[in-house]
Amino acid sequence: MKKDTSKEVKAVVLTSGGLDSSTCIGMAIEEGREIFPLSIEYGQKHLREVKSISDVVVHYRTKTRNIEPYGFRSQVNPLKKVKIDLRAIGGSALTDDSIAVPEGRDESEMSESIPLTYVPARNTIMLSIALGYAEVIEADEIWIGANDVDYSGYPDCRPEFLEAYETLAQLATVRGIQGNPLKIRAPLLSLTKAEIIKKGNSIGVPYHLTWSCYNGANKACSVCDSCTLRLKGFKEAGSEDPIDYQ
Amino acid sequence: MKKDTSKEVKAVVLTSGGLDSSTCIGMAIEEGREIFPLSIEYGQKHLREVKSISDVVVHYRTKTRNIEPYGFRSQVNPLKKVKIDLRAIGGSALTDDSIAVPEGRDESEMSESIPLTYVPARNTIMLSIALGYAEVIEADEIWIGANDVDYSGYPDCRPEFLEAYETLAQLATVRGIQGNPLKIRAPLLSLTKAEIIKKGNSIGVPYHLTWSCYNGANKACSVCDSCTLRLKGFKEAGSEDPIDYQ
Repeated sequence: MKKDTSKEVKAVVLTSGGLDSSTCIGMAIEEGREIFPLSIEYGQKHLREVKSISDVVVHYRTKTRNIEPYGFRSQVNPLKKVKIDLRAIGGSALTDDSIAVPEGRDESEMSESIPLTYVPARNTIMLSIALGYAEVIEADEIWIGANDVDYSGYPDCRPEFLEAYETLAQLATVRGIQGNPLKIRAPLLSLTKAEIIKKGNSIGVPYHLTWSCYNGANKACSVCDSCTLRLKGFKEAGSEDPIDYQ
Repeated sequence: MKKDTSKEVKAVVLTSGGLDSSTCIGMAIEEGREIFPLSIEYGQKHLREVKSISDVVVHYRTKTRNIEPYGFRSQVNPLKKVKIDLRAIGGSALTDDSIAVPEGRDESEMSESIPLTYVPARNTIMLSIALGYAEVIEADEIWIGANDVDYSGYPDCRPEFLEAYETLAQLATVRGIQGNPLKIRAPLLSLTKAEIIKKGNSIGVPYHLTWSCYNGANKACSVCDSCTLRLKGFKEAGSEDPIDYQ
């Protein structure tokens, strides 16, 4: 029997190759979305991410093809990449070579102030590019792996920010002014890292392919804020992080 | 006597080399702002703009230096350029080679539908990059030459869009959550092209250096929507357009 694809919900999913966005893709597949993965290369130092982005998307494309081998279109479309040179504006340890990535901090130290790894307006910029892509392909939703729990120092990871963005998206787009607003989905917003990992493990997220480290080596450094939170998350989730550490 | 620069208001001004944004810079100078011109190269076909952007900024930098030759910092800072490849997402005659720029239309034809020259989410994306830059340099305002009168087909040129963006900017930035929100200034929003030109002529905007044409030749084409509106504007303003047409 042929599947009815006429009402398929199209979802642009912001994809970074990291643990959160890779879980997001899995959750969007779980909800039956047709996925349009979008990665924004913004000049981050950890270009090791780029390999993970590609590996994760290829994994999901292969997997969903295997689930539905009957000639339907794949639920996961090829990765779309957009380059933007945020190094030009600087201001973050992730894009500015003159600012060092902090190491060896515990969670209380991380939450003391806006982290040096905060990329100014990063989520605003990434959502805006996703909005442009969503308009072109007539997508219904944008999914973002923003999280407000482990890393409360980023202003653009808060629920009120995402709600304001959804309002903006309605006013900014042709489909919005025609009364058919686009939704912003942030399913990880209020989950701890451990909860995200438990959820991901239950739906087969390929964490072995993901990359979280802020330092761009071949193995994860284990001491930057991102590695620290990831390792703690796996520990609390009672499972082992499948990637290699230095 | 040394000028008090401690309370200088810093303004990022989105700069396209066109008539509107060049007038915006003039108006921001008139209000005594310290200007940070920002151009976004988004893969538009009319790269002839790039020369105009540079010419206009150099003109203003030279001019404001001449006004204040007493060792103060210039009111107009060097141009900051950010590249983003919006061709990757396509969907507009300005970025997608497979879509032709419409020609020879009058204003009623232009306003019939969303123009093919609409770049999906362009103002949202440009404002978001400006927001990131504003955070890095601690700017107080972002100026944009958006206009809702001559070209009402763009959803992201309407007052309600810009108000929603200002709300978003407050939630998205460190300065916003610290109770010091950034302002979005769109002084041309409700002016006709003729009113913009009259204003610009009264404050010495260098229209001879600007470029509006959607087709990227050495001389403006005179028949695309942008040339049509520009020529009509100069005619209604009772002045002559100083640039060359084919």
